[in-house]
Amino acid sequence: MQVLFNGGFVPEEEAAVSIFDRGLCYGDGLFETLRVSHSRPFRWTEHLNRLAHGAKVLGIDLPYSAKELSAQAAEIIQRSALRQGLLRMMLSRGQGPRGYSPRGAKEPWLAMSVHPLPAATLRKPACWRLVLSSYRVQANDALACLKTCNKLHQVLARREAEDQGGDEALLLNTRGYVAEASSANLFWIEDGSVFTPPIGSGALEGITRGVVFEICSRLGIRCREHNCRVGHLKSAQGVFLTLSSLGIVEAGSLDGVALRRSAATQQIRVAYEQLLHL
Amino acid sequence: MQVLFNGGFVPEEEAAVSIFDRGLCYGDGLFETLRVSHSRPFRWTEHLNRLAHGAKVLGIDLPYSAKELSAQAAEIIQRSALRQGLLRMMLSRGQGPRGYSPRGAKEPWLAMSVHPLPAATLRKPACWRLVLSSYRVQANDALACLKTCNKLHQVLARREAEDQGGDEALLLNTRGYVAEASSANLFWIEDGSVFTPPIGSGALEGITRGVVFEICSRLGIRCREHNCRVGHLKSAQGVFLTLSSLGIVEAGSLDGVALRRSAATQQIRVAYEQLLHL
Repeated sequence: MQVLFNGGFVPEEEAAVSIFDRGLCYGDGLFETLRVSHSRPFRWTEHLNRLAHGAKVLGIDLPYSAKELSAQAAEIIQRSALRQGLLRMMLSRGQGPRGYSPRGAKEPWLAMSVHPLPAATLRKPACWRLVLSSYRVQANDALACLKTCNKLHQVLARREAEDQGGDEALLLNTRGYVAEASSANLFWIEDGSVFTPPIGSGALEGITRGVVFEICSRLGIRCREHNCRVGHLKSAQGVFLTLSSLGIVEAGSLDGVALRRSAATQQIRVAYEQLLHL
Repeated sequence: MQVLFNGGFVPEEEAAVSIFDRGLCYGDGLFETLRVSHSRPFRWTEHLNRLAHGAKVLGIDLPYSAKELSAQAAEIIQRSALRQGLLRMMLSRGQGPRGYSPRGAKEPWLAMSVHPLPAATLRKPACWRLVLSSYRVQANDALACLKTCNKLHQVLARREAEDQGGDEALLLNTRGYVAEASSANLFWIEDGSVFTPPIGSGALEGITRGVVFEICSRLGIRCREHNCRVGHLKSAQGVFLTLSSLGIVEAGSLDGVALRRSAATQQIRVAYEQLLHL
């Protein structure tokens, strides 16, 4: 598979960076993973805006304009002949003098690649087993809501969950409230309303999370941000996860305790699939 | 300069990794920076132990034994003809299937490189201007005390400090207590005793931090862990920082307020330099 690296198409095995790249040394970069549906990147503008916002917070100059990135995305999808799949973008601050200071690092780079859909997408609708993680995310952290390349807490939380036979990890924040799953935002249903932790909880500002707010508004379902303790999820009418690669995934259990299943989850999932295949 | 990469010596420009390396995608790796003094890596065993401990927490198999790594370190220093400088090691989980789960990533790699001493070392003893950061580290975080490749908080804290004319950033933890500087541990002096935040504060478990405990014990200075608020530092008898690359560095000011200078800092610094040049 060819990847777009530094503005040109190269075979995947030639897309390589120095071991002194700051993305590698310090996770000093950002990424985006988008669903490609009918050869188009789903919610492209939202993902691009999040990348641009993150780049601003990190102080990394995006090496291409929004127009150029849009053209590059269209071209890599077209070249790959991918109708359904994933598009990945990665931005790194690139190389610079040794040490944390980003001064002198003036050559950021951006890569774009396409990937097949994860196997889980193809056998949907599945139901995930959640495992509460011992790792926490930081409440009120300016970086937590961005898709940065600092994802070790998520990596190790996922590892813990898988080691315990789970599909996904549930992370609390430093205040003890539910924040997110390792690679997904979390929602729960109560009294017919849909709830999700606020961004300040340490949750990523997921694009699919935003789509759920839109769908709920259209369906006349009340959807709002709320902090909750983990025990609360066990008595909720339903719990579901949102992630760009898989869309809406219902949570079937938490630490081995079966969660209730809600018709609203299916309603939102169907509406999401309709949007995706428009 | 040649670097040791995957067990062989290659020119620096040939030491490159895939853009899909997990070290790059998620900061899924560890590093160490050691001072080289008289062609020997200072506190080699301690750094190696920290790397091995971190690898165990992350679940990454170190690709070489302690004996092999020691031989590699000796060889790269000898080849570089470096008498005074820095030795850097980096460990990454390597490539694996897309996504946070580390399953299937079975080819970790390790790189070793040598670097000249930072300019600041050569014009010592300097006195650093500290700037309080808006970023925080996580108290009671299993990862905070490790030298992982997730260092964006430290990178951005340093950037903030430099933008305000400072040399180094001071980070509080999520509970509001002083934790560390972006690339250094922090100590303060009070009533003739030396204090530093506990490891659970979110501070890195610095090797030079450990050396200060040893030195204090030998000099008959009481040294212990304690939590403190930032205001407390302004009334301390002295504040200093410890980092492997530079050793002991006195803090001269915090957010523009001059800090007191203590003879004890100089005493500890002199003892450290003696150890380094033994």
